[in-house]
Amino acid sequence: MKIKYHLIKEEKNTKARLGKIETNYGTFETPMFMPVGTQATVKTLSPEELKEIHSGIILANTYHLWLRPGEDVVLHAGGLHKFMNWDGPILTDSGGFQVFSLAKPKDITEEGVKFKNIYNGNQMLLTPEKSIEIQNKLDSDIAMSFDECVGFPHTREYVEESVERTLRWAERGKKVFSNERQSLFGIVQGAEYEDLRKHCVEELVKMDFDGYSIGGTAVGEPKDLQYKQVEYSCKYLPKDKVRYLMGVGDPIDLIENVIRGVDIFDCVSPTRLARHGHFLSMHGKYNIKNACYKEDFTPIEEECDCYCCKNYTKSYIHHLIRSEETFGQRLLSIHNIRLLIRIMEDLREAIKNDTILEYRDNFIKNYYHE
Amino acid sequence: MKIKYHLIKEEKNTKARLGKIETNYGTFETPMFMPVGTQATVKTLSPEELKEIHSGIILANTYHLWLRPGEDVVLHAGGLHKFMNWDGPILTDSGGFQVFSLAKPKDITEEGVKFKNIYNGNQMLLTPEKSIEIQNKLDSDIAMSFDECVGFPHTREYVEESVERTLRWAERGKKVFSNERQSLFGIVQGAEYEDLRKHCVEELVKMDFDGYSIGGTAVGEPKDLQYKQVEYSCKYLPKDKVRYLMGVGDPIDLIENVIRGVDIFDCVSPTRLARHGHFLSMHGKYNIKNACYKEDFTPIEEECDCYCCKNYTKSYIHHLIRSEETFGQRLLSIHNIRLLIRIMEDLREAIKNDTILEYRDNFIKNYYHE
Repeated sequence: MKIKYHLIKEEKNTKARLGKIETNYGTFETPMFMPVGTQATVKTLSPEELKEIHSGIILANTYHLWLRPGEDVVLHAGGLHKFMNWDGPILTDSGGFQVFSLAKPKDITEEGVKFKNIYNGNQMLLTPEKSIEIQNKLDSDIAMSFDECVGFPHTREYVEESVERTLRWAERGKKVFSNERQSLFGIVQGAEYEDLRKHCVEELVKMDFDGYSIGGTAVGEPKDLQYKQVEYSCKYLPKDKVRYLMGVGDPIDLIENVIRGVDIFDCVSPTRLARHGHFLSMHGKYNIKNACYKEDFTPIEEECDCYCCKNYTKSYIHHLIRSEETFGQRLLSIHNIRLLIRIMEDLREAIKNDTILEYRDNFIKNYYHE
Repeated sequence: MKIKYHLIKEEKNTKARLGKIETNYGTFETPMFMPVGTQATVKTLSPEELKEIHSGIILANTYHLWLRPGEDVVLHAGGLHKFMNWDGPILTDSGGFQVFSLAKPKDITEEGVKFKNIYNGNQMLLTPEKSIEIQNKLDSDIAMSFDECVGFPHTREYVEESVERTLRWAERGKKVFSNERQSLFGIVQGAEYEDLRKHCVEELVKMDFDGYSIGGTAVGEPKDLQYKQVEYSCKYLPKDKVRYLMGVGDPIDLIENVIRGVDIFDCVSPTRLARHGHFLSMHGKYNIKNACYKEDFTPIEEECDCYCCKNYTKSYIHHLIRSEETFGQRLLSIHNIRLLIRIMEDLREAIKNDTILEYRDNFIKNYYHE
């Protein structure tokens, strides 16, 4: 079946929404943060660990899985859920962001994007149809339309052209989409131009997607611009469909964008930060390698309920990360993802109580020690 | 309390022994294989995972923990068990093997071994007293005497001198040993010379250690020589004390040395092999990166009860290891350690049934596909 989005409640003072998404692999509440399993694994973690930190849904990358192991291997395995032993919902991206940001050199035409395979040098062509074909085979619960992700800065002229191309690509992808169990999202582009965002939303809604993503963020734009892009998108998006903001994972940004009407997020930051020894907390971001933690025998956060905080001290994790032991990265990955999901839980509670602005102000005060 | 070794049964046709060791952190049966937690972590694994694969005891390295984080950090944490969140038994080595094999340049004198700290270039001196002092602070359940590990090849003359030094060092270490909860083992050296092994055992037994290690193996000697060294040691060792063969982890060697009277083993091989994509099985050693596994949707071993084999296919692990994902290393580490521990379980059963020689012959036939 397609996913079903249920809007449970709108927060009184903001655009924040409490919702619920039903999928073939279970139901989860929104707002929700999705950990990223780039290569069909959330780096260092097991599916059981992801469940334990209440990950409602995870993301996998079409670009990476296309190149390795190849979508046919995943298809023959019985789909991504079976391949990676994850029985919760999975969202796949379109591969667009990766070909635009990782692949070099690349050549963008109406047909799609040409680039060189980084593993074997082969010429590759990712088109809207190919992206959908791969995602249909991966058999994720939610697939993304192939779009052009415009960088920052850019000219209005380029964005105008690009939005039209993204709309044509969305239509082409939808036409070949053929997996009954899967839902397909359209992607809203248009940078910081409200009229372009509005136009893009209207055209996408005519095509009637199962949900909508907000793209063109997390490409180096200033924060206030990111928030505006989200506002200009959510303002026109239908209330009865889920809204996904791509690539955003900073705690403050999660809060600000939930306030603007976003339901789901993904970002590699919690696991990437972990691999570099950074931990997130309600009181800011720190580096566990700092000498001050050498004999700190307290957990990362006393109030955190994760496996890392319940069982290990900063001193031990400091030692593991300094010793380049992957168990340290694993512990910090667990904690960092759990922290973002705890923020989501807090936000859901704040939406119920119509207190999300107080929550934000308080959070910012604690996070920046104001 | 000191550990208590209980000899339960001797196999009828060989020197193999079924036993049981009581410690402050639980009881385990022997023969037993110890996974190695070099830096107070068995690479990629959690304590829960080690429990799940029935690790009765683990090993930690004095040399590494001395240099980083330093024994005082571990002491202040409340000892190694608390520091690393492992509530099972721990054995620490003396640091001898590491200073002899890793540290360069080094200078061996009667006092101890001088070498340069690899992290900061400082001049370091490891003496029998220092090794014991560090281990007393680490608060492992079983500590090792500081010995000279002679390489291969060597001259009889050098081994003669070295055995005497090892005996003097054992005595010096025993003298300063001051942790009531900890047991201390003496280390049998003497290379392949039966008279020297006999002499070394006799002198150590006079000092009355809580158990005995067999050293000078796993230094590049041929297999038949290793087995002889073990025979020449076990022949003279007291029956009521546990015997630990250091650094041996090849499946066939485990079996051959249990047959010769060894109770416990340690080796980095199962986790090191895992990190390079190798898996062990009852049917030999293989590399999961091999193209033949790309679409092999069966587990590594159908008959294995480990988390890896119960939940993942060779195809998925092939993908993870090729993609350099640490979750792949983690799955193979779980399986490889479990395989060695399963062999130990088989050996204990074979000792009960007096069928260890049949077990060995069968194992070798399967392992080498004869």
